Amino acid sequence: MALSDLNPVERNEEGIAAVLGILKQQLGERFQTGQAIRSQHAHTTTYIPTQAPDGVAFPETTAEVQEIVRACAAHRVPVIAFGVGSSLEGHTNAPGGGISVDTSRMNRILSVNPQDLDCTVEPGVTREDLNRHLRDTGLFFPIDPGANASLGGMAATRASGTNAVRYGTMRENVLSLTAVMADGETVTTGKRAKKSSAGYDLTRLLVGSEGTLGIITSLTLKLQGIPQAISGGVCPFPSVEAACNAVIATIQMGIPVARIELVNALQMRAMKNYSKLDYPESPCLFVEFHGSDAGVAEQAETFGMIAEENGGGPFLWTSVAEERTKLWKARHDAYWASLTLRPGAKGLSTDVCVPISRFAECVTETEADIAEMGLIAPIVGHAGDGNFHVLVLMDVNDPNDIALSEKFVARLNLRAIAMDGTCTGEHGIGQGKIGFLRSELGHGVDIMRSIKQALDPQNIMNPGKILPAVGWIGRG
Amino acid sequence: MALSDLNPVERNEEGIAAVLGILKQQLGERFQTGQAIRSQHAHTTTYIPTQAPDGVAFPETTAEVQEIVRACAAHRVPVIAFGVGSSLEGHTNAPGGGISVDTSRMNRILSVNPQDLDCTVEPGVTREDLNRHLRDTGLFFPIDPGANASLGGMAATRASGTNAVRYGTMRENVLSLTAVMADGETVTTGKRAKKSSAGYDLTRLLVGSEGTLGIITSLTLKLQGIPQAISGGVCPFPSVEAACNAVIATIQMGIPVARIELVNALQMRAMKNYSKLDYPESPCLFVEFHGSDAGVAEQAETFGMIAEENGGGPFLWTSVAEERTKLWKARHDAYWASLTLRPGAKGLSTDVCVPISRFAECVTETEADIAEMGLIAPIVGHAGDGNFHVLVLMDVNDPNDIALSEKFVARLNLRAIAMDGTCTGEHGIGQGKIGFLRSELGHGVDIMRSIKQALDPQNIMNPGKILPAVGWIGRG
Repeated sequence: MALSDLNPVERNEEGIAAVLGILKQQLGERFQTGQAIRSQHAHTTTYIPTQAPDGVAFPETTAEVQEIVRACAAHRVPVIAFGVGSSLEGHTNAPGGGISVDTSRMNRILSVNPQDLDCTVEPGVTREDLNRHLRDTGLFFPIDPGANASLGGMAATRASGTNAVRYGTMRENVLSLTAVMADGETVTTGKRAKKSSAGYDLTRLLVGSEGTLGIITSLTLKLQGIPQAISGGVCPFPSVEAACNAVIATIQMGIPVARIELVNALQMRAMKNYSKLDYPESPCLFVEFHGSDAGVAEQAETFGMIAEENGGGPFLWTSVAEERTKLWKARHDAYWASLTLRPGAKGLSTDVCVPISRFAECVTETEADIAEMGLIAPIVGHAGDGNFHVLVLMDVNDPNDIALSEKFVARLNLRAIAMDGTCTGEHGIGQGKIGFLRSELGHGVDIMRSIKQALDPQNIMNPGKILPAVGWIGRG
Repeated sequence: MALSDLNPVERNEEGIAAVLGILKQQLGERFQTGQAIRSQHAHTTTYIPTQAPDGVAFPETTAEVQEIVRACAAHRVPVIAFGVGSSLEGHTNAPGGGISVDTSRMNRILSVNPQDLDCTVEPGVTREDLNRHLRDTGLFFPIDPGANASLGGMAATRASGTNAVRYGTMRENVLSLTAVMADGETVTTGKRAKKSSAGYDLTRLLVGSEGTLGIITSLTLKLQGIPQAISGGVCPFPSVEAACNAVIATIQMGIPVARIELVNALQMRAMKNYSKLDYPESPCLFVEFHGSDAGVAEQAETFGMIAEENGGGPFLWTSVAEERTKLWKARHDAYWASLTLRPGAKGLSTDVCVPISRFAECVTETEADIAEMGLIAPIVGHAGDGNFHVLVLMDVNDPNDIALSEKFVARLNLRAIAMDGTCTGEHGIGQGKIGFLRSELGHGVDIMRSIKQALDPQNIMNPGKILPAVGWIGRG
């Protein structure tokens, strides 16, 4: 397995040597070239091989990021933004070497505007940091991808997670941002007004651009009031299809569900063992409601009836914070629980998202594929959005296992695309999904390339990500 | 007043003559060059002078739009998309001549997917057409800019309106779209999955691009369930500031208000006379709540208390459909009511949007400006979003009146930008606001220009809109 062979980036040794010298001088101790630190800053969470950068910079200001990018631009050297490294598709790898820009020291919360329900932060602030800081204001930032990711990284990958069904994704929750572009100039993409029709939507262009157009150095985010009451619980179903039908009915009835997560039978078994949960090993929905005391009770009761109509139940729910926390901790630990199903294996995470009317069909066909191919691969899904993750547990030292897993993933991605869905609901393209982008978006890939060439003509901003090399025929 | 002098587009007489011949042959009766029809397809709603195209095409398919664009591309002739002509900033004007592409015959509703809460339509479908079609499904399309605009035009200008505070704008409600780009190729920007992280957000790039990057030939839109119950009413306040404070409190308490509109005292007087409403001539909030029977009653009561705490009231509300309809008809007729304040005058509409914490201050300073300058200029505002419209009633035959009005608008736009807001919340830049774009977005304008040059190197897609001509110093 060497994705880098598929979408290579040429190394510019001379340029890299020059930039290493410049940055050492400019940043001193805040520029590191040791092997360990370089490896840590390449991709680590999944099976994609690590491609380390040549040095890691720790800027503290936008001006310092500008200096770094200018040095790299002058010598045509790649610049790769780094948050906390929790992305899953090789986003932080350096296939042509270059400089990793670690934003962890840019972790100031610059302003909180309670009246406007927004705040402005530096990119290295993590979502847990922000929510800790906000606690006394009665506000919170709702997007929760599971990992304690940096907000800059979440914006760059257009992340979402369990409660996107109610609060949207980073696309809907970034009001504006400041980025350092490939020429070292900064751009601020908008003001703090809640809406604007002033020209092209540069905010949305940069959200999800995975560091290939610019490096985000500050973000203005929408905030929400902490709900007066929260209720939640778990409901078992006889089949994935029954669970999905309950989800469709819930969404259609306009119940403003805050989270509605599918966990399949195998994943339930893993979570039961790992998180000591007392639930049946059948497909379950984990749900949560936000609102007034009366509102969340009403929502929970209505959902219970819907579940029953679809053959599910009993729906056990609670408003007690500790019990809910245990539940969602288990859901968030699903990744680690899964790994116990095949000790020593690495997880290949998938991320398809389909129209909700095709969700049951897509999950069911995928489960059949898993059984047929003899894979160990539990499933969790953000069912309200039609998004689900299969974690394929794979022996990365066995080429046959890798080939089989990749075959499975290709079938899954193409199945989702054929169902009018996407190969990635929230993880991004990175290196891992480049081969599927044209299958999904066709000529859109050429338009993306035109934009990339216009804004980064030297291809120094996170090269080798999102866009396939010209002439390369993707696996999709 | 000749905005076209400020941001000119050169006429290519030879190319235009060639394209007129080609399109006459290709489209027959569906290509018109009569004076009346050409004038109707240039801008008419506001004071901006009409700049007619050289011909108007009435395509019926995406393939026909491609043929038109290809002919124009081959001869370097402008192509201007036209919906119903309700835009307000000269969007449909043809400063360098060229071909208007009237999408009114592309008015099919291609599919409705009730389970997925989405539908796919051609660009000429109007929002009222769509909602009539949806009635039996229990679903509706919420974006309501007042005018019965075409959905293609609404997407192109990133429109919103009275209930954006709850349902968002066209930005949040277009799931994907198909467009014919400047080279005549089509692109479909996404699938029907509710969310995606697959590369650059081409949907959001085209939404709000005002026909300057491509012509939208189909759109997939998010739908909402028709609420079980709707309640609404009108609440007077002693001052704009008191009303705005009530708005802030309402939003902060997380009341999911569906509409919350500010109408100032002068506008109330005009509406009372025009729509025969029996309300005081003081600043009022028009509000509406969507939800369950119990929910909307609870929301209305809570709002009533907030209003009282801020010196407002009485808040008279109703769940009776006919009474609500009369109320919102009056709100939607505000434009026509305003014109009666100065018979014979034309309205110059403004569209600033500021963070809600600055809303009261911005409206109050603007009212002071109006009084000081002796203008007749009522105000309505989408208060929940911080967006408001001043309609300056102006004698378009009096150069002094025009100069005074433009001075007022410039002050207003720069005031909003200084308050971290935008010169346009929902109308777009068109020709009318080009001079303010750099004040608002600085280097962002250059990035927009790079994108425009990359995707439309001949500058044939609605030229002279959004982007100032190179070297031109904007009025802002």
